[in-house]
Amino acid sequence: MSGTAMLPGVGVFGTGSTARVLVPLLKAEGFEVHALWGQSEEEAGCLARELGIPFHTSRSDDVLLHQDVDLVCISIPPSMTRQIAVKALGIGKNVVCEKAATAVDSFKMVTAARYYPQLLSIMGNTLRFLPAFVAMHKLLLEGYVGEMQVCDVRVYGPSLLDQSYGWTCEELMGGGGLHTVGSSIIDLLNYLTGFRAHRVHGLLRTFVQQNGLIRGIRRVTSDDFCFFQMLMGETGSSSGGLCCTVTLNFNMPGSFVHEVMVVGSTGRLVARGAELYGQRNGSKGEELLLGDSGWVGPEVKEMPLPHLLGLSSMVKGLRQSFQAHEERRSWAKGPVAMAPTFEDGLYVQTVVEAVKRSSCSGEWECVEIMSQEPDPNHNLCEALQRNKT
Amino acid sequence: MSGTAMLPGVGVFGTGSTARVLVPLLKAEGFEVHALWGQSEEEAGCLARELGIPFHTSRSDDVLLHQDVDLVCISIPPSMTRQIAVKALGIGKNVVCEKAATAVDSFKMVTAARYYPQLLSIMGNTLRFLPAFVAMHKLLLEGYVGEMQVCDVRVYGPSLLDQSYGWTCEELMGGGGLHTVGSSIIDLLNYLTGFRAHRVHGLLRTFVQQNGLIRGIRRVTSDDFCFFQMLMGETGSSSGGLCCTVTLNFNMPGSFVHEVMVVGSTGRLVARGAELYGQRNGSKGEELLLGDSGWVGPEVKEMPLPHLLGLSSMVKGLRQSFQAHEERRSWAKGPVAMAPTFEDGLYVQTVVEAVKRSSCSGEWECVEIMSQEPDPNHNLCEALQRNKT
Repeated sequence: MSGTAMLPGVGVFGTGSTARVLVPLLKAEGFEVHALWGQSEEEAGCLARELGIPFHTSRSDDVLLHQDVDLVCISIPPSMTRQIAVKALGIGKNVVCEKAATAVDSFKMVTAARYYPQLLSIMGNTLRFLPAFVAMHKLLLEGYVGEMQVCDVRVYGPSLLDQSYGWTCEELMGGGGLHTVGSSIIDLLNYLTGFRAHRVHGLLRTFVQQNGLIRGIRRVTSDDFCFFQMLMGETGSSSGGLCCTVTLNFNMPGSFVHEVMVVGSTGRLVARGAELYGQRNGSKGEELLLGDSGWVGPEVKEMPLPHLLGLSSMVKGLRQSFQAHEERRSWAKGPVAMAPTFEDGLYVQTVVEAVKRSSCSGEWECVEIMSQEPDPNHNLCEALQRNKT
Repeated sequence: MSGTAMLPGVGVFGTGSTARVLVPLLKAEGFEVHALWGQSEEEAGCLARELGIPFHTSRSDDVLLHQDVDLVCISIPPSMTRQIAVKALGIGKNVVCEKAATAVDSFKMVTAARYYPQLLSIMGNTLRFLPAFVAMHKLLLEGYVGEMQVCDVRVYGPSLLDQSYGWTCEELMGGGGLHTVGSSIIDLLNYLTGFRAHRVHGLLRTFVQQNGLIRGIRRVTSDDFCFFQMLMGETGSSSGGLCCTVTLNFNMPGSFVHEVMVVGSTGRLVARGAELYGQRNGSKGEELLLGDSGWVGPEVKEMPLPHLLGLSSMVKGLRQSFQAHEERRSWAKGPVAMAPTFEDGLYVQTVVEAVKRSSCSGEWECVEIMSQEPDPNHNLCEALQRNKT
């Protein structure tokens, strides 16, 4: 029996840049992609032809109920993610999905994932899988930097807005630098340090509210600049725990900076792009700890290298996980153990919302993870209230 | 008549690294340094011999009343600065001095400077004079970056603590990264952007509270990590004005990072160390706008290159200012017009104190410049109050 014979068939939701990169990666690892869903028949048909996917549709059930599909990969606008992810689990499919739009959505996904523990349910947050961060995580555990003091993250790049008006322009639809990129950083820092944020402070700005394509009565509401701080770890310690500062700036066309630094009592580690550097106190200079293994696939303008390489490593992990068992739906925890769970997704979403609250209130906000679903009527009242002001 | 004949005689206060660098710079420009003050006779004598200064003392009046001294340069612990600076002006000497310890001290210095407008009174904050920042300032005025959106500053380096326990360890004495380095950045951003901060938010930490030399009952109270944000410019604009974020980390032995970036609607400028780079939106890469002209003097461990080169340029400016007139006490405004005034010093000190308040309160704090001296009895009450808690 060949290795690929044991891999589950895949159905992909989404026709954006992630889906476009993901399908070739899945195929390269031996997965068969049987079905593609797009918001319109046309979009789905177009990409399916391009990527050689035999079946395409704009009706989600056609993918979810497809008999050859055992693993569903969801890369669609955040506001639609919860519905597809929860339904897929309910039908008995394994799920890899992107972030949802709200903490309430994330909570519903957690509930579903808890209900079907035998199914794989992971967040497709790919930075954890990047070899530089895997190495950084290991070195932090081994004490390379001593006691962690400060994490300092900067991501600079060109605008995240789509060519046309859409969810990327709308803060409430899950658009903006904080939701799109910040959430992958929040998850990464949780993974790297082993700590979660308990208090956050942030500032969001939309410097570019209109451009050549978005004009007239339409305005961008999602942030293109975001600065936030997270206090993590023990509050009782004399130094007050770990401080993380994150600066996201997407008004910098022509550049891409992705830098994650952890400074500790005896040294520091810095990942620049996909490379890892380190310096111990007392040494004269930085040492290159892990080079950039390079990206051999096609270049993707919308997806920066760390995310591309991370996605590629995640797909390898998925292959190993499913290959470990003979039955094509079964999977082993080991190779995907480092992947963020839906619970991690809820934590990230909670931090994102706390940062947004802080940007409005100007105050430090507590990160309190939802433990039960809020009363929907209460939500409705709040929404009405918000519309009034 | 030779050029040097018109230059004022100089008296220098201080025996630290700044004084040690300053004296040779002054001499190189043709100034004669007649007198040196140190906290002890021994320190003063030692450095006077090393630098070839004919007179040394530990009594401040001996320098201030010295008949050949027309210009007084003050580089002493912040808590002592106000007293010397105000007295020097009162005696009719021109003054170049470093920052004071408190806003009240700064206000007293402003009052003295206003009272003697014919005397030169500038803050020896040297970053403004660095050629890279002079060029940056010019390009910002010319619209290189379009409308300014974000300033992002990072300074990383080794510990700022002295070898032995002293004012650098004490927050209330003017020690710490915010006071020492942050204040030069606050001044610089005011100079570069033409705006002042109206609200600030910050977080200070002292990660290293004791070391091999500071132990027992002694603890460092000054910050070795600080990040703060300043909101500047018009609050009424749709984008909410200019956001500045500053990260200072002095737990990074073996490294020195000094990066000042201004991002605008059509491009950006970045000064790294003493070099200036720029990139306009639409261009493929950064261009080097101004190289590092290099430092030809001796290396000074305690003083990073941008400060060294800035100090050197300031001394040149002083020489030009005094050379413009035949009378050795007279000076021309032009060559030192860009220097920070004592009013700028008060603004900087006010921002520093607002950031410290914010770090305690966790809230955004307003920057309100003192317009009259607070009642000293009120201060006493507050000090007593503080000691109680």
